[in-house]
Amino acid sequence: MTVAAAPRALVFDVFGTLVDWRGSVSRAVRECFGAQPDGVVASERLADAWRGCYQPSMEAVRTGKRPYVTLDTLHRETLDDVLTRLELAHVDAPTRERLTLAWHALDAWPDVGEGLQRLRTKFRLAPCSNGNVALMADLARHNGWHWDAITGADLARNYKPMPAVYRAACDAFNARPDEVMMVAAHSDDLAAAAKAGLRTAFIARPDEHGPGRGEQHAALPVDFSATDLTQLARQLGC
Amino acid sequence: MTVAAAPRALVFDVFGTLVDWRGSVSRAVRECFGAQPDGVVASERLADAWRGCYQPSMEAVRTGKRPYVTLDTLHRETLDDVLTRLELAHVDAPTRERLTLAWHALDAWPDVGEGLQRLRTKFRLAPCSNGNVALMADLARHNGWHWDAITGADLARNYKPMPAVYRAACDAFNARPDEVMMVAAHSDDLAAAAKAGLRTAFIARPDEHGPGRGEQHAALPVDFSATDLTQLARQLGC
Repeated sequence: MTVAAAPRALVFDVFGTLVDWRGSVSRAVRECFGAQPDGVVASERLADAWRGCYQPSMEAVRTGKRPYVTLDTLHRETLDDVLTRLELAHVDAPTRERLTLAWHALDAWPDVGEGLQRLRTKFRLAPCSNGNVALMADLARHNGWHWDAITGADLARNYKPMPAVYRAACDAFNARPDEVMMVAAHSDDLAAAAKAGLRTAFIARPDEHGPGRGEQHAALPVDFSATDLTQLARQLGC
Repeated sequence: MTVAAAPRALVFDVFGTLVDWRGSVSRAVRECFGAQPDGVVASERLADAWRGCYQPSMEAVRTGKRPYVTLDTLHRETLDDVLTRLELAHVDAPTRERLTLAWHALDAWPDVGEGLQRLRTKFRLAPCSNGNVALMADLARHNGWHWDAITGADLARNYKPMPAVYRAACDAFNARPDEVMMVAAHSDDLAAAAKAGLRTAFIARPDEHGPGRGEQHAALPVDFSATDLTQLARQLGC
């Protein structure tokens, strides 16, 4: 029997797992367009439609049809599609830039600041997100996080769930995959990480897509499962 | 006339500029071998010989003769050469590993902690070193630094002074080269950064190679020149 090494590094999914992208993007939409009576519904519709483009937009890079471009570039491109689809084609270019930068100022879920601080006492910490370094650095400043490094798409020049992204995160810490644990609110992310040999921790974010419309439980066996980061910290003895 | 943008990000050379590699590596050598009467001279001779392999070891990667490997790998390989040359071929493998990891625990020059803290209030900060991410993350923990990101060799998969390394550092912050300033104690590094379009700040580290044997002044025109990081912080209004 081989005993798995204790993890030395935790790497985190960010959108949905650490930050409330839906609440933050829809707020930015309302700030740009003003709050009509139906402003909340419309802004969340735009946020959902925009996020709906997220996976498809990365597919051309994953399949090698397109050279690596950052998520900022993809966000800016897919915003154009979404605005046209929602009959908002009149929105001017500066507003489109401002909306794209809303992804750099997403608010963390309430437990994340304390959770990361506690986890930091025992582990190396890094995001392993499809967001680019500039986006991750801005989110860290916005929310007061202290990362050891920024891993993810920019480092691997590819997008999750491609195995190269998880492997690059391990390499960044000179760690074997079983010394690294992926922390995410999404079963597909954890499944890909597990397939790459990483350990896994599921965080429930039931409200990610609106009240009760996020994942409540992991759809696969995981090493740890917690309701938030402070609970995970307790489980890991921090 | 075009006015250069104020820099948004400062990127730092690390070995020599932020940390005293010679003092720290030679101390690690003495800890490994014990302090004979001539221990200091011998340990500094080993540190100097090892660092002497630094530039040549990266050349195969820069010229494309060898795929990218991390500086940890190069340090481990060149240590073998140095030990053989110094008639220390009997040194065992665990000791060689321990010595290689000495590069992960180099002490900062005394001004660096306060300097980085002050510069952080106005600028995004990242190392742009030939050291790999794991090495940079360990140095940050060892010295209590808070980086926004880690740029440099691992991100570019190439070594300074190749222009791709400086460009990747700018891209990491979504910044044009003239929005990024390279901070270094070495004129050749600053010359390459300037050629890539970055702004430049020289920090004097006269004792890098032993008392009075480091660069005292930049050998090229630079945007800023300071005796240490706290003076640079003052010059930049932090």
